[in-house]
Amino acid sequence: MSKLKAVVLLSGGLDSATVLAMVKARGFDCYTIGFDYGQKHSSELKAAYRIAEALGDHPHKVIRLDLGSIGGSALTSDDIDVPVEGVAKSGIPVTYVPARNTVFLSIALGYGEVIGARHLFIGANAVDYSGYPDCRPVFVEQFERLANVATAAVDASDRWSVEAPLMAMSKSDIVATGTSLGIDYSLTVSCYQADGNGAGCGACDACRLRRKGFMDAGLPDPTQYQNGIFPQI
Amino acid sequence: MSKLKAVVLLSGGLDSATVLAMVKARGFDCYTIGFDYGQKHSSELKAAYRIAEALGDHPHKVIRLDLGSIGGSALTSDDIDVPVEGVAKSGIPVTYVPARNTVFLSIALGYGEVIGARHLFIGANAVDYSGYPDCRPVFVEQFERLANVATAAVDASDRWSVEAPLMAMSKSDIVATGTSLGIDYSLTVSCYQADGNGAGCGACDACRLRRKGFMDAGLPDPTQYQNGIFPQI
Repeated sequence: MSKLKAVVLLSGGLDSATVLAMVKARGFDCYTIGFDYGQKHSSELKAAYRIAEALGDHPHKVIRLDLGSIGGSALTSDDIDVPVEGVAKSGIPVTYVPARNTVFLSIALGYGEVIGARHLFIGANAVDYSGYPDCRPVFVEQFERLANVATAAVDASDRWSVEAPLMAMSKSDIVATGTSLGIDYSLTVSCYQADGNGAGCGACDACRLRRKGFMDAGLPDPTQYQNGIFPQI
Repeated sequence: MSKLKAVVLLSGGLDSATVLAMVKARGFDCYTIGFDYGQKHSSELKAAYRIAEALGDHPHKVIRLDLGSIGGSALTSDDIDVPVEGVAKSGIPVTYVPARNTVFLSIALGYGEVIGARHLFIGANAVDYSGYPDCRPVFVEQFERLANVATAAVDASDRWSVEAPLMAMSKSDIVATGTSLGIDYSLTVSCYQADGNGAGCGACDACRLRRKGFMDAGLPDPTQYQNGIFPQI
């Protein structure tokens, strides 16, 4: 029996790389997709190609999409700075990109429909980023319901499945799991303002949470930081 | 009291132009959005600007989005011809673009979130195009449910509304309604393979259904057709 196909959202960061390794370990035939959406940290795009290749030469598709023209986020708008003062305890951070996961999953849905995949995987995580509305279980559940009325694959024997396997995991769980699956995290880029080589700023939320994940897991942090500045936890 | 803001999907075709006129007549402050997604009939993009201006100079935003790289549709892939043999009675036509309305509404959702609109309008219609899964009432209802868990606007007093006001209308109803609201349909482009000036091929489903709409409504068809060829109904 041939493997089931899966579309895996792959940004180039630590979380989505781990999802890819997990989905591959479950025996799926993985097709990865990423988005050149106007993000400041575009070096993650190169990281995604490296990861797709390192984990087994999966076909990686990059979709160009101009979310920058909508703005409203520190990740896409020059008018809003990426916060570097430490992870806020409450509220939705300005790094939230309006409707980003809805848009990304929608395009992955169309891609899955074309290639005959019915499984979508996203690295959404509710533990460290509880402030992002589209990283909650209820969002993923509702997207799966939408998928099952949105495409030509609508009969009961051909249903869509949308999974976020990291949803309830801590960053240290994620790092430990990926390490056990053989991921070389030095290939990944998490920083919201990574330089052209993918080196992290060491100050944004993404750098801090990533650093803390390695520390809590008791694993060495292979991340390159700009000017050798390590994140404060 | 200031007007409520609405995001209206505006392709440049007959249906979405009518939606814009209807939403404007209901008193909304309209922001239109269209997509340069790799469609063969890109002259609809110019039509959208003409319509947005003619109906009251609404701000019109065009998002670039490379759906052509996914393919799987006669509208975006050079490998699939637009059918010209007449409207099929059943099945999903090859002009269906996988997950297109899901993607378009998702981006409209992000735009609405940034500008403070909570009303989205789409020209989906289940009567003439019952073959498109993402043009059915159940799709629009489920997208509204998703919207209400997907963004930062999640409390009960600030809910999203997603409407498809043409859903149950025939093409002749649509044409008659738009005409009564003052739309100049010569500004619109429906043809799936319109030329650079927006003239219709006269043979694709979009040309045939549009033509039939004007005939059934007893209204003159202002459409320009290539080589003066009028669609067979």
